[in-house]
Amino acid sequence: MYNSHNGKVPVPTLERLATYLRYLIDLEQSHIETISSAEVERQTGINAAQFRKDLSYFGEFGKPGVGYNVIDLQSRIAHILKIDREQRVILVGAGNLGSALIGYPGLKEHRFNLVAVFDNSASKIGRPLWELQIQDIATLKEANATLEARIAILAVPATAAQKAADALVEAGVTAILNFAPILLRVPPSVYVRNVSFLQELAVLSYHLSAAPEN
Amino acid sequence: MYNSHNGKVPVPTLERLATYLRYLIDLEQSHIETISSAEVERQTGINAAQFRKDLSYFGEFGKPGVGYNVIDLQSRIAHILKIDREQRVILVGAGNLGSALIGYPGLKEHRFNLVAVFDNSASKIGRPLWELQIQDIATLKEANATLEARIAILAVPATAAQKAADALVEAGVTAILNFAPILLRVPPSVYVRNVSFLQELAVLSYHLSAAPEN
Repeated sequence: MYNSHNGKVPVPTLERLATYLRYLIDLEQSHIETISSAEVERQTGINAAQFRKDLSYFGEFGKPGVGYNVIDLQSRIAHILKIDREQRVILVGAGNLGSALIGYPGLKEHRFNLVAVFDNSASKIGRPLWELQIQDIATLKEANATLEARIAILAVPATAAQKAADALVEAGVTAILNFAPILLRVPPSVYVRNVSFLQELAVLSYHLSAAPEN
Repeated sequence: MYNSHNGKVPVPTLERLATYLRYLIDLEQSHIETISSAEVERQTGINAAQFRKDLSYFGEFGKPGVGYNVIDLQSRIAHILKIDREQRVILVGAGNLGSALIGYPGLKEHRFNLVAVFDNSASKIGRPLWELQIQDIATLKEANATLEARIAILAVPATAAQKAADALVEAGVTAILNFAPILLRVPPSVYVRNVSFLQELAVLSYHLSAAPEN
């Protein structure tokens, strides 16, 4: 995974923050009130020093000898990642992947509000997808003038991805999660994050062969 | 995204190698024979110095003043990532996400051979999924004794993920691409790579708010 541009905080730190958040939610649900960085390491596989360094970008956290308050840390990380407020999201591509993403239970829990889904296929437009009705991508700009979503998930085939990205940018979207295996061309003000299944498998493959045999 | 353990080569380097590979394949299809690191930067958004550093882990590449041979670089990266040979992969979870993954056109192209799909749902077992027939996860170990897949894709709900991971480890799988939003517990010899849609969206969200308004 690479990113078209970064802020000052390293992207891997942001990724790990989201991992800590996931873990903290589990802890809260188990009614655990405080944790140590050593415990974070044991549970997440992320080094305790790394955990402390990741947090250090954002100020003071935790108390020496006491540890970190689970609920406090959770809400501070959610605030850092700006997922403590509603974020409206639109989905382009109503195929299997789009269906899987829209049904992902974690979205609502984290206040990502999927407000519309678009496709270019006449056989899909007008049909329901979960609680939404699939809309014609030709109407994206008009629809988003009202919806004002700034985040989009792009789950279309590679051949359709650039055209869909152009439409998203035109419609005022400034952050795109791209699942199509192509490098999108967007203005510098638009942040693209690429998820490539091939890339994920390639990293697995590399480690598979390097790992000791069972 | 984080990894339960790393080799000596940084994971972000491996991720970028897969990005370069994707780009090189496009170039080859456009009959472009050589490229410069500046051109890589322009096309992928990855800094030219970073590109050269990523390659430097693996020896000498390219010729000063000439650049990189597209086909040669492509085959060398494929070799580094060990995707120049067939890798058998099994899929656990035949829902929307599993269906999307199994139908992903890049897999075969890169010699990831999806040899079997398993699920625990009686309503799915025995039904076809693309060219495969969905098998009962209870038969996973027995089936993989013949298939000998070492890579698995885990695309099941969070509640089913740990049990499925245990079954995969039991069946000899040593590398798991996990889409379930939980931290799997596996032996140290098993490499897990987590893909979290929530994490991806959180990183987007962070940059969205930090980016200048359009």
